Amino acid sequence: MKKYLSSVLLILFFVLSAIGHYAHWSPTVEFIISAVAVIFVAGFLGKATESVAHYAGQRLGGFLNATFGNAAELIIAVMLLREAKFDMVKASITGSIIGNLLLVLGLSLFAGGLKHKIQKYNVTLAGMNGSLMIVAIIALFVPAIFLNTHVLHEEDRNTLSLVVAGVLIVAYLLWLVFSMITHKNYLADVTDRTEQQLPHEHEPAWSKKMSILLLVVATVMVAFVSEWLVHSLDTFTTKFGLSEIFVGAFVVAIVGNAAEHSAAIMLALKNKIGAAVEIAVGSSLQIALFVAPVLIFVSHLIGKPMDIVFTVIELAAIGVSVFIAKSITQDGKTNWYEGLLLIAVYCILGFSFYLV
Amino acid sequence: MKKYLSSVLLILFFVLSAIGHYAHWSPTVEFIISAVAVIFVAGFLGKATESVAHYAGQRLGGFLNATFGNAAELIIAVMLLREAKFDMVKASITGSIIGNLLLVLGLSLFAGGLKHKIQKYNVTLAGMNGSLMIVAIIALFVPAIFLNTHVLHEEDRNTLSLVVAGVLIVAYLLWLVFSMITHKNYLADVTDRTEQQLPHEHEPAWSKKMSILLLVVATVMVAFVSEWLVHSLDTFTTKFGLSEIFVGAFVVAIVGNAAEHSAAIMLALKNKIGAAVEIAVGSSLQIALFVAPVLIFVSHLIGKPMDIVFTVIELAAIGVSVFIAKSITQDGKTNWYEGLLLIAVYCILGFSFYLV
Amino acid sequence: MKKYLSSVLLILFFVLSAIGHYAHWSPTVEFIISAVAVIFVAGFLGKATESVAHYAGQRLGGFLNATFGNAAELIIAVMLLREAKFDMVKASITGSIIGNLLLVLGLSLFAGGLKHKIQKYNVTLAGMNGSLMIVAIIALFVPAIFLNTHVLHEEDRNTLSLVVAGVLIVAYLLWLVFSMITHKNYLADVTDRTEQQLPHEHEPAWSKKMSILLLVVATVMVAFVSEWLVHSLDTFTTKFGLSEIFVGAFVVAIVGNAAEHSAAIMLALKNKIGAAVEIAVGSSLQIALFVAPVLIFVSHLIGKPMDIVFTVIELAAIGVSVFIAKSITQDGKTNWYEGLLLIAVYCILGFSFYLV
Repeated sequence: MKKYLSSVLLILFFVLSAIGHYAHWSPTVEFIISAVAVIFVAGFLGKATESVAHYAGQRLGGFLNATFGNAAELIIAVMLLREAKFDMVKASITGSIIGNLLLVLGLSLFAGGLKHKIQKYNVTLAGMNGSLMIVAIIALFVPAIFLNTHVLHEEDRNTLSLVVAGVLIVAYLLWLVFSMITHKNYLADVTDRTEQQLPHEHEPAWSKKMSILLLVVATVMVAFVSEWLVHSLDTFTTKFGLSEIFVGAFVVAIVGNAAEHSAAIMLALKNKIGAAVEIAVGSSLQIALFVAPVLIFVSHLIGKPMDIVFTVIELAAIGVSVFIAKSITQDGKTNWYEGLLLIAVYCILGFSFYLV
Repeated sequence: MKKYLSSVLLILFFVLSAIGHYAHWSPTVEFIISAVAVIFVAGFLGKATESVAHYAGQRLGGFLNATFGNAAELIIAVMLLREAKFDMVKASITGSIIGNLLLVLGLSLFAGGLKHKIQKYNVTLAGMNGSLMIVAIIALFVPAIFLNTHVLHEEDRNTLSLVVAGVLIVAYLLWLVFSMITHKNYLADVTDRTEQQLPHEHEPAWSKKMSILLLVVATVMVAFVSEWLVHSLDTFTTKFGLSEIFVGAFVVAIVGNAAEHSAAIMLALKNKIGAAVEIAVGSSLQIALFVAPVLIFVSHLIGKPMDIVFTVIELAAIGVSVFIAKSITQDGKTNWYEGLLLIAVYCILGFSFYLV
Repeated sequence: MKKYLSSVLLILFFVLSAIGHYAHWSPTVEFIISAVAVIFVAGFLGKATESVAHYAGQRLGGFLNATFGNAAELIIAVMLLREAKFDMVKASITGSIIGNLLLVLGLSLFAGGLKHKIQKYNVTLAGMNGSLMIVAIIALFVPAIFLNTHVLHEEDRNTLSLVVAGVLIVAYLLWLVFSMITHKNYLADVTDRTEQQLPHEHEPAWSKKMSILLLVVATVMVAFVSEWLVHSLDTFTTKFGLSEIFVGAFVVAIVGNAAEHSAAIMLALKNKIGAAVEIAVGSSLQIALFVAPVLIFVSHLIGKPMDIVFTVIELAAIGVSVFIAKSITQDGKTNWYEGLLLIAVYCILGFSFYLV
């Protein structure tokens, strides 16, 4: 019953947002409908990816999950790139990182902590995640500092952006090798076994061929609704007097990550805090170390080169999010108050971006 | 004997500074006498608060202690606010935070470490304190970065300051709920029981009614001597060619925190390092998360609105103090050399502020 | 055989670079030959220091090792100071710190981690090292922030530089007292005993008198080849269109630290990761807390006063290196991927400096 309902809603909102787009409905209505449609098709894409990953076997499957887990954000960002909306691309990358580290993680710890006094998870993985987060902010800060204090040729700016992006992608791929092949048990040995098996605990609903077909269908659907959403953003942004950076960092990012939000909170309530932290922190790492650098390369391929230089307030937002998230996760124990602190920082950042 | 001596000195310096103020003595003499008087009445206010807290029962008492522990600083700052000395208010907030994190904590670890080779305390509480410190600097950094990189309306500046102040006060009140109600034992379970009972180990010297009366008397006395001190500051500052920021951050802050200084060092020498760290770190958290935001609201109530934007060097001073204090306290073990490192950073900051 | 070979090469390259210098060979050839000569004589100086330290007894020996371990860098820097090449001095200090924290440590963890799955060392020492690193960056950041935001007299700039340098030297000397006298066993108690004995495990090859003589000879040789290297730098830098800061931070620093590089990697491969980390982290601490401040004093003694204010990109490079190194070393466990992360950050910084 529930399964049919979500399928019906998925198709309904997809069709509605298609009609809204081609029939030129009011941009606000088009924006709301396509935002809801994005949430449903992103969830559908996530399920299809997981199902294909299941059939692909443990290693290739883990790789697929880790690489296409943020496919919806990636597709939305490519749509924004095609219209040369670089500011909004960077804002939505910023928003995805801080949304995962502060809002998703914060709500998970808060909700989980209200139900379970203290929740624990693998402290070694938390330490490695912390170091990866630091590398991610270093990779964003260093070009910004060098390019803001020295005048470089356009060509050198692009080369620096591509080199840093290349280093991050290599680091991310080797992280998959490390965490899935050479040190798989090292990162898992403290965690509850049931947590580890969680992504595969149910048999997938679809056959192998059907899964691949649905993955293709979902990707195409995400591409369409993303374009419709992006199309409606301009008028919506202007009408409500919002800045591009606020819409990108808070509206687009929350819509694009809605699936992760609900999944992580559900897991936290079931006392599977390790898996919830993995979704939140893992997703933000994937955005910073894989999605963002891939977008730099894609921007050059489609002839609209984007550099890796974020604005000062975006860097500040990412920097403070990493620091508080690292401080809170590093001891491997969480409680409701730690979740609240993350949400407090998210509120301060959200209101500051709103005023800009 | 000792008790009478301190009462006599308290009254003597209070009367002397009153005479000095109304008879227009030399500002330097007035400054010195009122500074000594502040130290004595602040100590008296602390004792009266503790005594009232004792009768109020554990929960309300803990709340009173936690909320009025820095009442003297708060009153001095309100006196400065009334004269629109915003720079000196912010400097004295900065000075209280770094003074507690570097000088009080540093001297405690150093003195305690010389007598006891290694001292230990609850590592979980240290971790939570560290996260709270990070939230405090985020709340000060974010508005400064946004307001220094973007031009906002006066009204938006004030709204942002009030929103951030509101978030901090809510976070602080919920921290009291967390540490005194929902997770009281969680934060205490590693520490020596005797430490926990320390604030209440002696019966208070005064009856319930007498305690409340003395609390009122002490508050009024602090208000008077603070005003006399603030009044003498201008001439003193000018005469010795000191900057407002140096006087606020080092002179006023050291005078206002003298009571905490001596209490923390005494506890460290008695090997009660957990209680000493709590005074130093807890006091700086209270200033950052409660006193500073309350001052923002008070400044609007009395019609002299102050924003939450600190200067670059103040933010730098608070930032580096939090980083070194967090690094040193996070393992729950201390030694004399760690105390020395904190004092070294305090000397570097003190000399830098002196030159400005 | 191997021993004779290195002696022959040492003398050969020393003589060659002398001839190259006085016969005015091509600057590129002179640069390459004197760079190789520096690597050999720095290694020779290191061995002579160790041998003298052996005869001096444990305490004085440890002091000698800790103080003259970076004698080669110190001598190169004094040669640069004499020619008032302040930018290159600061760049080479920066390069030594980040080279040790990122390249030497990174290659050691990577190579050691490929051979041994997980390597462990004393977590208490790691924590103390982390705090010392934080103090080092605070000492470099604070003057830079104060002097960049406030206009100070030339005299005050110099006083601030000397005061900060003095505080660092005192902190470094007391660190030797702490780590070698008062808390020697505290820092060693977790580590494998064999590691501790490592520097003294072989009898020195030379007698006491011979060791002292060789130390003097080595120091003189380093002084000469350093001068020849510095002399050839200008033309080399200009010819290849490199910036002074890149040559100082990457070329000079790698040449000056080559001996540490190979020693640390060898130890990591032998699973003596604690000793390898000590070389890498200890060496960078010595540069920051002892060599750099001594150079400030020396610059005043030779009448070419240098301040302690580093450029923004140098501070950024040192800051990010400390953060990632602290994050990676703080749990006392290492693996190949953590080494790779350090190398990745080094590559990003190296390419950024190259473009400037």
